[in-house]
Amino acid sequence: MADEIRPVMSRRDMFSLIGALAGSAVMYEAMSSLAYAGEAGYAGPPKLSGDVKGATVLILGSGLAGMTSAYELRKAGYKVKILEYQDRPGGRNWSLHGGDTYTELGGFTQHVAFDKGLYLNPGPWRIPYHHQGILHYCKLLNVPLEPFVQSNYNAYVHSTKAFGGKPQRFRHVQADYQGYVAELLAKSTRQTALDQAVTKEDQEILLQSLRSWGALDKNYEYKLGEASSERRGYESDPGGGLTSVPTPSQPIGLQDLLHSGLWRSIGAGSGYETQQSLFQPVGGMGAIGKAFGAELKGVIQYNAKVTDIRQDAHGVTVTYHDTKTGGAPRQATADWCICTIPASVLSQIPITVGAPMKAAIDNLSYGASAKVGLQFKRRFWEEDDNIYGGITYTDQPNSLLGYPNHGYFGGGKGVILGAYTFGPAAYAFSSLSPQERIEKSLEYGANIHPQYRREFDTGASVAWHRVPWTLGCAGSWTEALRARHYDDLCALDGRIMLAGEHASRIPAWQEGAVLSALDAIRRLHQRVLAG
Amino acid sequence: MADEIRPVMSRRDMFSLIGALAGSAVMYEAMSSLAYAGEAGYAGPPKLSGDVKGATVLILGSGLAGMTSAYELRKAGYKVKILEYQDRPGGRNWSLHGGDTYTELGGFTQHVAFDKGLYLNPGPWRIPYHHQGILHYCKLLNVPLEPFVQSNYNAYVHSTKAFGGKPQRFRHVQADYQGYVAELLAKSTRQTALDQAVTKEDQEILLQSLRSWGALDKNYEYKLGEASSERRGYESDPGGGLTSVPTPSQPIGLQDLLHSGLWRSIGAGSGYETQQSLFQPVGGMGAIGKAFGAELKGVIQYNAKVTDIRQDAHGVTVTYHDTKTGGAPRQATADWCICTIPASVLSQIPITVGAPMKAAIDNLSYGASAKVGLQFKRRFWEEDDNIYGGITYTDQPNSLLGYPNHGYFGGGKGVILGAYTFGPAAYAFSSLSPQERIEKSLEYGANIHPQYRREFDTGASVAWHRVPWTLGCAGSWTEALRARHYDDLCALDGRIMLAGEHASRIPAWQEGAVLSALDAIRRLHQRVLAG
Repeated sequence: MADEIRPVMSRRDMFSLIGALAGSAVMYEAMSSLAYAGEAGYAGPPKLSGDVKGATVLILGSGLAGMTSAYELRKAGYKVKILEYQDRPGGRNWSLHGGDTYTELGGFTQHVAFDKGLYLNPGPWRIPYHHQGILHYCKLLNVPLEPFVQSNYNAYVHSTKAFGGKPQRFRHVQADYQGYVAELLAKSTRQTALDQAVTKEDQEILLQSLRSWGALDKNYEYKLGEASSERRGYESDPGGGLTSVPTPSQPIGLQDLLHSGLWRSIGAGSGYETQQSLFQPVGGMGAIGKAFGAELKGVIQYNAKVTDIRQDAHGVTVTYHDTKTGGAPRQATADWCICTIPASVLSQIPITVGAPMKAAIDNLSYGASAKVGLQFKRRFWEEDDNIYGGITYTDQPNSLLGYPNHGYFGGGKGVILGAYTFGPAAYAFSSLSPQERIEKSLEYGANIHPQYRREFDTGASVAWHRVPWTLGCAGSWTEALRARHYDDLCALDGRIMLAGEHASRIPAWQEGAVLSALDAIRRLHQRVLAG
Repeated sequence: MADEIRPVMSRRDMFSLIGALAGSAVMYEAMSSLAYAGEAGYAGPPKLSGDVKGATVLILGSGLAGMTSAYELRKAGYKVKILEYQDRPGGRNWSLHGGDTYTELGGFTQHVAFDKGLYLNPGPWRIPYHHQGILHYCKLLNVPLEPFVQSNYNAYVHSTKAFGGKPQRFRHVQADYQGYVAELLAKSTRQTALDQAVTKEDQEILLQSLRSWGALDKNYEYKLGEASSERRGYESDPGGGLTSVPTPSQPIGLQDLLHSGLWRSIGAGSGYETQQSLFQPVGGMGAIGKAFGAELKGVIQYNAKVTDIRQDAHGVTVTYHDTKTGGAPRQATADWCICTIPASVLSQIPITVGAPMKAAIDNLSYGASAKVGLQFKRRFWEEDDNIYGGITYTDQPNSLLGYPNHGYFGGGKGVILGAYTFGPAAYAFSSLSPQERIEKSLEYGANIHPQYRREFDTGASVAWHRVPWTLGCAGSWTEALRARHYDDLCALDGRIMLAGEHASRIPAWQEGAVLSALDAIRRLHQRVLAG
């Protein structure tokens, strides 16, 4: 049966082999010839065939990694059980709705008062099209998905230090930057500055392409006119009947544009993880965790706070407290353990693993990040600004405004992601009370949308360093840390295997948690069959 | 009451005035200071106040222009009636569903056999965020909208003459083109070729921006590595656990890229009319026409074929045939007439208007265009290719493949827009039978998706030159034609006013029809009040 779980030659290995044997030209040809197939290489969950002879697996944590592990192992014949600290499944896959209560470290308790159907995703909020692992489970669990909008050309990019602090439309900065780049390169090309880099014939094609791509005029200039307005929009749009002659819009000057720094804010839509198409579950990201939890009803024991993890040659023993009913510490035992507790928390729990894994756990720090959701009485971003979904970027500490990607044109209230902080700003936000975080978010947001104060209704926030069950948002790997500790973190240590986004190369993404789990159970199963 | 309908000074006029009085710097400042307000300038339907004294308006055609006119005029107190040639409202706002029957000129009848919930939009299929006129009526009529995806980075761009005819991922061509442009401009900048165009200080900022925007490495080169793969995607994606090291993907060579011509296919997502966000009605574009028709129940007389339009000093008399019940020609009379019959058809109907309007009607030609919808048994583009919505472009006559922007991940069947032809290709498609159009679409599409033949189920097509009630898809204005005839087409000729997309500067878009109608009724109302 072992052949069933032998990894087939990966595409990567095959190409390397072809490259070594036949040279890079043939390798490239081979790669091209496979262009029909998806590159992502996600081939579905591993097939865990073979007799597992009643083996038991104790899984710590019912986040996506824990539940993925439990689901697949149960299917393969293992007896599985999950111990979960919280009273709900999902972990960081989580949405805050009206009626929810959340208490953070420091003691602040928030009673979320969003209207029905509105929510904040404190953690993950989008799923790229190539994250086929998490998408697989969305399909399997019948979690309906809807498009997530990253780039909205009518949203704003904003710098307090440019244009008198007035927000600019994304489309203006995007079109103007692209236009000037095209104009300057066309100029260089025509001045023969590129004769060594590009053949004369190719220069002609390049010029032709720059004109169409950059919206240049017949003189290869990017300037006020129909071509540029057909990208950045008109000052006054073409219309109907007799009052309809359009007025082109004036591009921002090149120098103003460069000095504004706003070109930093136009790239997300072309990044691999944030390019179209992206998705979000209908009703909030937490829908995935809920569906997974329902599927695993009876497998998950909630309110179980793990305080000790031990293994010997025969099995694993985990000590935990029932935080709801109280009483004496209890113990759960199993042949194997998959531990998805974040390293930030796990480093504080006694665990009998070898020094390399322990060092990996202890050395991985967790990022700070905070999110603030602001409910407004009116969807003024749609009604006044014609912004339907997507993101406005700002150089203020709140970093961005995420408009809701659902309920378009429906009128009524809406929840904006009013802050998504990183780095030093995240520490600053974490030091504030939930109420102060909302106040700060309103202050920053009002510099972009003057309607903010008048329309504000209620808010909620999560600062991840204060979340009792993660103490941070995600594993914060550096290249050096990874080189030293990553393999040790992921190795099977006796009878214990770790899994989670931190045990992946896609940290902070749900896909990392899922793929980490799939790799962990594949290797665990291999070990079990090996006896 | 006349002051209520006096047009306020337009933003355009105001800026021109400021420019003339104070110079362009101040004008630009004034424009910037208004940046908070929407630029589109759509201020809602005109307020038609005043006593219309029972005036009657006969409207010809229940497309969007006709129904917009009827809705607003009725609200203002006019007695309105619409004569419609077809047995349904909407005109080119139209979706073909299973069970529909459509007979084109030449006699071909199609019995559409799409599954429930699947459809082809033969005409308009997307609504840009700034088309606030049509969006206004969607809101008013409670037509739910969902995102339309234009650019999908994982869809294909395809040329039969490049890469051995193999389709390339949009993200590869997009990232590589942008990367090389950035690299070449960085090279020119560092070679001081741009010293006259960009100051030394700005060159530093330009280089910094090119590196981040173009995904260049530390030497300002666009090449195989993490930076470029974070745009174009990896050969093998980063993953979880121990089998997770990513392999970067190999960019296409600059020369191959330029010669492929595929850079022509990456621009749509940045165009003003096709940039994010865009929308489509849930269930097909025809939902708008249906909702409008329901709202105007009793106002629209269907199956009325207009054969003569006459006016004199006292009113308008229209002769029509009831194509359903037959019998003698009938007549309808009114004080005023808004005629939305396409000029292509109207030029063949006797009408008493002055020579200038008649010349305008007779000189406007209508574009050819054909669309083919192909239902497949399986959504292989999602399941095999990870393409969720959006468009694949090809240099074949079918021009593009539009993937359905609804029912993602739902499995089951789906309808691809298998051809959307323009120009000579549209004439070629129009000359074919519906069955032959489907066959051609399958032939072209199979060069991109080998699954096409095996998965094909059923299809439908509309070639607009063969549509009995439009004889073309939209008014085909040239600059010269517009200069000579446009104002005459839109003028109030006695008691007759034309409206429709052809009477706008946004031809072929529904917004043109709506804004044309709003301008027409505003001017008609002005005339009525003037007595």
